[in-house]
Amino acid sequence: MAGKYYNLDNMLKPKSVAIIGASQSPEKVGHIIMQNYLNVGYSGEIYPVNVSSTGTILGKKSYKSVLDVKKPIDLAVIAIPAKFVADALEECGKAKVKSVIIVSSGFSEVGDSELQEKLVSIAKKYSLPVLGPNCLGVMDLRSRVDTMFLPTFKIDKPSIGGVSFASQSGAVGSTVLDLISHENFGLSKFISYGNAAVIDEADILNYLGHDPDTKVIIFYIEGVKRGKEFIEVAREVTKLKPVIIIKGGITPAGSSAAHSHTASLAGSYQAYEAVFEQFGFIQAKSLDEMLYYAKIFEAQPLTTKKRVAVITNGGGVGVLAADSLYLNGLEMATLSKESEKILRKAMPPIVNMSMPMDMAGDADDKRFGTAIDVFSKDPNVDALMIISLFQTPGADSRVASTIIKYGTESEKPIVVVSPGGNYAEVHNNMMESSGVPVYPSPEDASKALAALIKYSEYRERHSKSG
Amino acid sequence: MAGKYYNLDNMLKPKSVAIIGASQSPEKVGHIIMQNYLNVGYSGEIYPVNVSSTGTILGKKSYKSVLDVKKPIDLAVIAIPAKFVADALEECGKAKVKSVIIVSSGFSEVGDSELQEKLVSIAKKYSLPVLGPNCLGVMDLRSRVDTMFLPTFKIDKPSIGGVSFASQSGAVGSTVLDLISHENFGLSKFISYGNAAVIDEADILNYLGHDPDTKVIIFYIEGVKRGKEFIEVAREVTKLKPVIIIKGGITPAGSSAAHSHTASLAGSYQAYEAVFEQFGFIQAKSLDEMLYYAKIFEAQPLTTKKRVAVITNGGGVGVLAADSLYLNGLEMATLSKESEKILRKAMPPIVNMSMPMDMAGDADDKRFGTAIDVFSKDPNVDALMIISLFQTPGADSRVASTIIKYGTESEKPIVVVSPGGNYAEVHNNMMESSGVPVYPSPEDASKALAALIKYSEYRERHSKSG
Repeated sequence: MAGKYYNLDNMLKPKSVAIIGASQSPEKVGHIIMQNYLNVGYSGEIYPVNVSSTGTILGKKSYKSVLDVKKPIDLAVIAIPAKFVADALEECGKAKVKSVIIVSSGFSEVGDSELQEKLVSIAKKYSLPVLGPNCLGVMDLRSRVDTMFLPTFKIDKPSIGGVSFASQSGAVGSTVLDLISHENFGLSKFISYGNAAVIDEADILNYLGHDPDTKVIIFYIEGVKRGKEFIEVAREVTKLKPVIIIKGGITPAGSSAAHSHTASLAGSYQAYEAVFEQFGFIQAKSLDEMLYYAKIFEAQPLTTKKRVAVITNGGGVGVLAADSLYLNGLEMATLSKESEKILRKAMPPIVNMSMPMDMAGDADDKRFGTAIDVFSKDPNVDALMIISLFQTPGADSRVASTIIKYGTESEKPIVVVSPGGNYAEVHNNMMESSGVPVYPSPEDASKALAALIKYSEYRERHSKSG
Repeated sequence: MAGKYYNLDNMLKPKSVAIIGASQSPEKVGHIIMQNYLNVGYSGEIYPVNVSSTGTILGKKSYKSVLDVKKPIDLAVIAIPAKFVADALEECGKAKVKSVIIVSSGFSEVGDSELQEKLVSIAKKYSLPVLGPNCLGVMDLRSRVDTMFLPTFKIDKPSIGGVSFASQSGAVGSTVLDLISHENFGLSKFISYGNAAVIDEADILNYLGHDPDTKVIIFYIEGVKRGKEFIEVAREVTKLKPVIIIKGGITPAGSSAAHSHTASLAGSYQAYEAVFEQFGFIQAKSLDEMLYYAKIFEAQPLTTKKRVAVITNGGGVGVLAADSLYLNGLEMATLSKESEKILRKAMPPIVNMSMPMDMAGDADDKRFGTAIDVFSKDPNVDALMIISLFQTPGADSRVASTIIKYGTESEKPIVVVSPGGNYAEVHNNMMESSGVPVYPSPEDASKALAALIKYSEYRERHSKSG
């Protein structure tokens, strides 16, 4: 390894890929992976490798071993039964392959630490960055790399964006990938790292932390291989960009489950919590929360101030918003006299100028637009919560457009609350694909805003102290 | 009023309805309400009433006043400007109308308590059950009554079922209605009661508590008009059926927002929490939680025991499930020797018999079916959590069918965890419409199970003490 941490560029932006275990049979993992490479329009070289191959696989000339390729190989993906993996890895070393992903399972996660140790020593011998085993590999929408061996029709494809996601668990990985497109934010890179035999959490955090295409990192971990190094990297990276973390195995019950899952030592809840807090991680308590946080950090500016202006087209949901802001340590903004004057003129007499400002069920795009514009300029307002109930008579796609217009112009963070069924969802998708984060309840939106402010404070504290 | 609490049968199952403010103009509230009655196939008599009417409205003979109808009227819906409402109500009294809904706003919620008091005294004079003012009215899918004046294309229609929903706030009401069909459970009755000038929380809880079509009650309140009576009713009703409550205005910020919303005195957080706890209410902290609780109570049996068996087709989500069960005070079940023996034979060697049981990503309907069947019969198991990640290669509609088959046969409560996008959602809808509650995360499922168990304990305690 060059330096203390592996560089994963060859793995995520390979110019050439060997697929060991590539096959003509559609049920084989190696077939699915190769098919994925072909489907996503990967423009580099593909070398299918199969010991029993004769001629071509999926239209490409095939090889019995990577040693037969005789051309530079940036990445080899190994998808063959566990017992053959060590030999294949040895051949990768000899062939000067630059990086390897082992998707095969059947190592320490099923109790076979010896077989896994063998892989580690081969990787060391050749200074070979190896991801896995027992993982889904990687996905990079920009470089069109996808080593996932999952049925693509089951997982919605995210758009290209600024969030990178690393997951120890393959199942959490594929589930969250599917949810990302549902939440309408954009993905940069996905790394499923499984047993972390060679490349571990510290390597991945370091790589994504310095990756210019990654604006926000989300991380599902069960344990940490090199605690000291992980903290060292975190200390640096959390000052550069938000790192949202969810830790499986925080309780005795979960910890024992995690141990039999990836054989990781899950550690104690308190110890992890303290570390996360101290080093500026944003801790999520559930998968939903992780995604809700990613959404606000991807698109909204940071702020350390807490005065939130709330507009709503439904009184009751405004009341719930006031409760949830308070419970999350945020404050209700008080408008400046100037703002009140403008709004008093623009709103019908029934609308009260106190917060949350209930614009009534017939509020249309004009009322929404005026209020958002005034709040955006008011020096007494630090952030906006816009409750837009699309069940009301006044709310339609012009309201959504108006929220997008002012929402993307404002220098203050904006969250939208819009619960509902099909009609609401169409408009939520519209707003989210333009970078306005939408939440199903005031509680979720308040939590996301509170996380944004907490992280902003961490950043400010640590930029001052240097 | 006959007895202490109003009977709402005439309002929810009327044989004849007068719509005061009915109009040919599509933008008028009275037009929308009348159109709704016609659209949902209401089979009773409809009498449009409009002071300036000549001839017919929407094809029905119209009247200048309810006094001109000269036939029995079970329900009058008043949808005219606030200043004319008192006179219309007086006429309803004289015409011996049996119940009245006032959807008009412009009373105590905008500070005009005097105008509202006038309504109260007229209602008293004629012993007239009056709902509102400032409300959406009612909906009963069985009797095909719908007084809502909202654009129907914006709100997904729930199916007929066992959950009744009462809401002080109209906005919360219409939003939750829209979400109900999204969560795929069935609605019995919806009552939006607004300012609660005459009919109040105690009346509604009492009515729904004794309504044979209502299995579960969900209730959004901001304040309570008659505290003593509300508690008296609650004491009885919570022993009969689950009552899920969400209270807006639990914090100082929310409470002041609630005051300007429906002019209700929201009271102190602690006082309400203590009352809810003592009298067996199930308290929800957010709209999502309220719906998640409704779902499990509508379809699943009660249990006071806490040993939960967990199966998953993805290890990481199983780890998160173990954490969330622990954090919600539930226990992980340990299988009987007998169960272990059967499962050991049915599962591939890679599957560990400890909980959560990770059946691996290729788990198909056979593995799911065997596990659910064995858990359902195991005396060491009290409840089941089934994690079915539809992103995995083995999960498809046969898995969903299997979960429905065993899930609806089992005498133990079952919750399913299935996060994801479009492919998952199709299968979630399939399971939910058959009465299997599906949750987006282990956390949500654990909370719902914990609420079920807590309420079951309350019921058991109070059935013993009588």
